[in-house]
Amino acid sequence: MDKTFNVAIVGATGAVGQELIRLLESRNFPVSTLTLLASPRSAGETIPFRGQPVPVRCTEVSAFSGQNIVFFSAGAPRSKEFIPVALQENAVVIDNSSAFRMQSDVPLVVPEVNGHLVTTSSHLIANPNCTAALLLMTLAPLRNLGQVSRVIVSTYQSASGAGAQAMAELREQTQLFLDDQPIVPRIMPHPYAFNLFSHNTAIDDSGANEEELKVIEETRKILDDPNLPMNVTCVRVPVLRAHSESVTVEFADARPDLDAILGAWDKMPGVRVVDDRSNNHFPMPLEASGGDDVLVGRLRNDPSHPKAISYFLAGDQLLKGAALNAVQIAETVAKL
Amino acid sequence: MDKTFNVAIVGATGAVGQELIRLLESRNFPVSTLTLLASPRSAGETIPFRGQPVPVRCTEVSAFSGQNIVFFSAGAPRSKEFIPVALQENAVVIDNSSAFRMQSDVPLVVPEVNGHLVTTSSHLIANPNCTAALLLMTLAPLRNLGQVSRVIVSTYQSASGAGAQAMAELREQTQLFLDDQPIVPRIMPHPYAFNLFSHNTAIDDSGANEEELKVIEETRKILDDPNLPMNVTCVRVPVLRAHSESVTVEFADARPDLDAILGAWDKMPGVRVVDDRSNNHFPMPLEASGGDDVLVGRLRNDPSHPKAISYFLAGDQLLKGAALNAVQIAETVAKL
Repeated sequence: MDKTFNVAIVGATGAVGQELIRLLESRNFPVSTLTLLASPRSAGETIPFRGQPVPVRCTEVSAFSGQNIVFFSAGAPRSKEFIPVALQENAVVIDNSSAFRMQSDVPLVVPEVNGHLVTTSSHLIANPNCTAALLLMTLAPLRNLGQVSRVIVSTYQSASGAGAQAMAELREQTQLFLDDQPIVPRIMPHPYAFNLFSHNTAIDDSGANEEELKVIEETRKILDDPNLPMNVTCVRVPVLRAHSESVTVEFADARPDLDAILGAWDKMPGVRVVDDRSNNHFPMPLEASGGDDVLVGRLRNDPSHPKAISYFLAGDQLLKGAALNAVQIAETVAKL
Repeated sequence: MDKTFNVAIVGATGAVGQELIRLLESRNFPVSTLTLLASPRSAGETIPFRGQPVPVRCTEVSAFSGQNIVFFSAGAPRSKEFIPVALQENAVVIDNSSAFRMQSDVPLVVPEVNGHLVTTSSHLIANPNCTAALLLMTLAPLRNLGQVSRVIVSTYQSASGAGAQAMAELREQTQLFLDDQPIVPRIMPHPYAFNLFSHNTAIDDSGANEEELKVIEETRKILDDPNLPMNVTCVRVPVLRAHSESVTVEFADARPDLDAILGAWDKMPGVRVVDDRSNNHFPMPLEASGGDDVLVGRLRNDPSHPKAISYFLAGDQLLKGAALNAVQIAETVAKL
């Protein structure tokens, strides 16, 4: 690969932004210049990249001139404001926000699942919701074994999904709780230390919250299965940075053998089976944290349905759930 | 109520035992004498009851003489050893362990659901598994609205279910984690601070763990529905003392109106609806902790099935999940 790229990151000081910088370095992405962009509050800081301090600049129109690849990870409003500018400058944009994910002309990509949608004519590519991305890594390989007819998921989502401030709040509140001090939530709507709560996004008339709707819509779009029946319950648990999911999958025709499912996961890049019944060792968020792989296991037949199976997964929300997937998309772009 | 009772508690120094003592006092149970029994390690301690220090005695055969009601909360082996002794002494035994729950001649009772099974001829009454008891409080009222044909549950279980030592371990490990110190699990099989893991009980050939089998078998027994299709995934989360459950219920004929379900829960003693969509306020373990009520909400139609609904519950594992239910059984006995 001889090409190199001028790369910019919008939201460089956030939890995902930090991981993007680290991954571009550790995966030797062919960066020619790196431009780090953030809110005025963070401008002036420096962040090391390949041993050199890189200044953080304010996100503004002039910053996108000459960029080849721009990662956006600063929330949907910032994406809506500046992505048109980056596209105007002919950059390829990889957007980690929800702003354009469901737009029909924007590919929504998990490279291992539908990376073929990234082509030389792709200008804006959306990075999926973290919970959807982790689920898809384990769900997509099952479709070779039979038609999936229903998916039921309950999540155990970490603080990192709400950003670095939520992670800090969980640590701070937990210390206060242990010290018997009063807790006043600032970032999350409810006390978080030793507690859990329904995902902190708005509920619509159907009773679903926004996170659940994203998981459903984005999973359907990435699987190209627009009517796949899905039931998702999203819950925040007091874990720092990896999400877990309890998943039940029904098949239309017959239940695949469990060995065939384990085999399909074994063959899936980015998925690692952790399914040791004798040692009671299954996917755990602490073991998924900091790792590239989505851990999957606790696989068993669903005793309540003749054509269903259940399993459990854990994956780093900041990596495969966000930054790693985005860098993998960039790597796909770089190879075109 | 003029009768008074000689009451003994086996396992008086455990997490559930402590709550039993507190509830017997706060609910004015007609205690004539209170005998506190525990392992030799705890014998000699005193625990206050109605303002008086009560000595903790060693659990031994002679301790059961003259007792009218004996609570067992010291694990299945202790129950198997001493319950025959207590029955020999004509005590009514309320057993919080799993030792006799599935024995066909032993009533397994959640008083609000099947309290009619407690009669003057009851000698041994089993107190159900905590996760099953909390689930039953919300599931039983739905059966008046239609035939339940399948139940799918993912749990979020607290440390208290594994006893006072597990609660202490979670606090200690969390402090070590925050101080960047190494963690060595002692009680639980895996690191617990900011982590979660599949329930720490043995897995059988079907892939189910013992906790899941208990929830399934006991729910079926209490509902008197021996073939009810159930799929249960039991997970420990870093919460101190209340369990939560994400529940999906399918009905055989038609989906009841959500208002009818809310109404059924409103009428159920011991259940409190917490279902405020506009404030994103649903059942949380921290709000359930220390309270008698099982909190239920997040009620909505299951978008993946025309005859199913989903909801979320939280209830104090030590109270309705254990000690409160046991004392309610004793109150039923006392009123006979």
